[in-house]
Amino acid sequence: MSNNKRGILDMNAFDASSQESIASPLLKRRTDNIGAASVLFYKKPIEMVSARGCWMTDVAGERYLDFYNNVPSVGHCHPHVTAAITQQLETLNTNSRYLSEITESYLEKLKSTLPPELKNVVMTCSGSEANDLAMRIAKTNTGSQGFIVTATAYHGNTEYVTQVSPSALKHGVCPDYVVTIPEPGSAAYGDDIEAGFNQAVSGAIALLTDRGYGVAALLCDSIFSSDGVFSDPAGFLKSAVDTVHRAGGLYIADEVQPGFGRTGDCFWGFQRHGVVPDMVTMGKPMGNGFPVAALVVKPDLLQNFCDDVGYFNTFGGTPVAAAAAMAVMEVIEQEGLQQNAKTIGLYLRQQLTLLSKTDKRIGEIRGAGLFIGLDLCDPGTGEPAAQLAIQVINGLRDEKVLIGAAGPYGHTLKIRPPLCLNQKEADFFIDAIKKVLERLAN
Amino acid sequence: MSNNKRGILDMNAFDASSQESIASPLLKRRTDNIGAASVLFYKKPIEMVSARGCWMTDVAGERYLDFYNNVPSVGHCHPHVTAAITQQLETLNTNSRYLSEITESYLEKLKSTLPPELKNVVMTCSGSEANDLAMRIAKTNTGSQGFIVTATAYHGNTEYVTQVSPSALKHGVCPDYVVTIPEPGSAAYGDDIEAGFNQAVSGAIALLTDRGYGVAALLCDSIFSSDGVFSDPAGFLKSAVDTVHRAGGLYIADEVQPGFGRTGDCFWGFQRHGVVPDMVTMGKPMGNGFPVAALVVKPDLLQNFCDDVGYFNTFGGTPVAAAAAMAVMEVIEQEGLQQNAKTIGLYLRQQLTLLSKTDKRIGEIRGAGLFIGLDLCDPGTGEPAAQLAIQVINGLRDEKVLIGAAGPYGHTLKIRPPLCLNQKEADFFIDAIKKVLERLAN
Repeated sequence: MSNNKRGILDMNAFDASSQESIASPLLKRRTDNIGAASVLFYKKPIEMVSARGCWMTDVAGERYLDFYNNVPSVGHCHPHVTAAITQQLETLNTNSRYLSEITESYLEKLKSTLPPELKNVVMTCSGSEANDLAMRIAKTNTGSQGFIVTATAYHGNTEYVTQVSPSALKHGVCPDYVVTIPEPGSAAYGDDIEAGFNQAVSGAIALLTDRGYGVAALLCDSIFSSDGVFSDPAGFLKSAVDTVHRAGGLYIADEVQPGFGRTGDCFWGFQRHGVVPDMVTMGKPMGNGFPVAALVVKPDLLQNFCDDVGYFNTFGGTPVAAAAAMAVMEVIEQEGLQQNAKTIGLYLRQQLTLLSKTDKRIGEIRGAGLFIGLDLCDPGTGEPAAQLAIQVINGLRDEKVLIGAAGPYGHTLKIRPPLCLNQKEADFFIDAIKKVLERLAN
Repeated sequence: MSNNKRGILDMNAFDASSQESIASPLLKRRTDNIGAASVLFYKKPIEMVSARGCWMTDVAGERYLDFYNNVPSVGHCHPHVTAAITQQLETLNTNSRYLSEITESYLEKLKSTLPPELKNVVMTCSGSEANDLAMRIAKTNTGSQGFIVTATAYHGNTEYVTQVSPSALKHGVCPDYVVTIPEPGSAAYGDDIEAGFNQAVSGAIALLTDRGYGVAALLCDSIFSSDGVFSDPAGFLKSAVDTVHRAGGLYIADEVQPGFGRTGDCFWGFQRHGVVPDMVTMGKPMGNGFPVAALVVKPDLLQNFCDDVGYFNTFGGTPVAAAAAMAVMEVIEQEGLQQNAKTIGLYLRQQLTLLSKTDKRIGEIRGAGLFIGLDLCDPGTGEPAAQLAIQVINGLRDEKVLIGAAGPYGHTLKIRPPLCLNQKEADFFIDAIKKVLERLAN
């Protein structure tokens, strides 16, 4: 089993220090401009020049089927979204200290998809900002400081949110007030995921109480994306959420990954589990690439927080952000993308399951809708095969499919195309992965 | 003297609990949707529907000259910026893990305005994210935790940055690792602002050292916007920056407010002081309303930070963010907006100074370019007159000018129109403020 606990990205990233291939002048410029913060996909990075629907085109004119990026969720450069942003940019783009009809219309549209308890929305620029605010609201309202997250979670990039994002900490461990629990597919939980996960949460609460922090919140991405995609059985979160509530803590649903119809079954990932969060955070696909994110919250929680500290976000909830986000909602509805995610996602899982019958390197296939995790394993021992995952990712690149991986060992292919994926495109991917696995078998 | 230490915004904001005027259905919807986090200008908020250049138009068709909002810095809805964003939205909008020519071109353009030491740029969505990251980099590189900020500073809205934003803390004080010093116009400094400010910084370093935190950084907005606009004498920051460096700390220039030519004299506010920051953060006007911000940093500082923790920002440095920011730079250059800020800013200060000769309610007039602070005072005692400031702000609204205030007592009018302000528009404002002051004298 690989010791890599940092996921696939670093393992498959361009490494400027290797001097391997600063052949491209653009790559040289990039390294000079961004320095150590530059993270590029692939040992030989791709220069992209255009994109449309599920496809991206590089500078040489090669087209790639995008199975990776979950931001352009209604399709790259969707004309309806572009038109809505342009029209609003031409008309009015100002901060939310003036009233604006489009912003309120959007908030009402958004709230109509959510439990009625969640009456207030705070718009931000990024999921990180939304999670940062959610954590602060949890701390203020509970008087406790402790957070519970899964072991390979990622929730964002601010100082506060990085502390609850173990997958971003290269050498360190989370601080004392953060307790990590195994991902919901862990063998530690046995067959009863709900009971196991609940027991782990109970243990974490006891630990946080012992340490004097108490529990402010359980913070979970309900599809457990960076942990390796764990979706089933739907409903397994319920006992854990009840346990947190009984201990006086809150449940924050981080919907940055599973939200906006991607899981097919429901509009939000937490709805698959039949739970009502105290707060919901969202981002990435919300504006199909326009920087917009939000926190949805029970009003009393927000009120208690705002008694202590002001919160204002200059770019949050501008008419343009609202127009972008409204257009995304309209496309999801008009093009039936949640249903499409369900149908095509099921088709993909069926085809991959077929493939797994004859190829022992394919382990578990998990997921809901168009959020699928596929484990690559040693065919002999069944153990995680991170190197194989890198080979498959690079092989798929040769076959013109963009894909990434997740999980503590980086052996889980993260299958996450735009929600407008059609069957022909799904078949393109299935053919490509077949070819790659065949090639790698020789 | 007023006891209000929270600035004017709260004093002049719509108060939902007052029941005064939820007459407007849109206002009711707003209050229902955003709850306690809703902050609206004016006791009777304005519904805006469009804007162009320096003017905004409300739902009744009334036009207002915008002397407040420093985001649409090249003018509201500038067609060149809109066109650049639209074109890029139609072509490619993806994260920065692929190479993209427009992003590197922009970064090079940006770096050409900055000291050569500052070679690396990390793009983010908001100034808050940029300051959050700058503080983390300072902490990692110095091994110290202490920060020095001015007493009414505002640097952003994340958990970490709020702690160094005393103006955002309603009841509390900054934590122990943050020491605040008086704004550079404080009487505490006497006539030699440079020596006084330097002495305050020295004292803060001593305190942070005593408390065991050491000094990570001096974090300053070089126009001291929320402190009440303190610009002169140019160069006064120099001794304090040297002192911080000698103590092993860093100097972070928060250019979210003064950057991008607004001060007229220089492209960046810190350049007026002849200092070289270790890090520069920027935001608000960078994309003229498109959510884009950045941290510029010395490469070794970034490298040391990235050894410990990964940093990736999904919406940071996308081709669309770069296209928006590039278009803003082009407009500033092509329309000579830095020079215009200098010329019209000087004209405004001259006219206001003339007015002050005959009106004792006008105290100090400070500023550089189109960033001007005007103190409103009790004509008898010369003390801060916050209530008068509210009356002037509301009077100016009646005269169709949007303006706000700043400073610990909220008695400083913050004059901050788009950089494309022409003389006729400047005169419109001068006439308006004359009328308002005249009316209030009766």
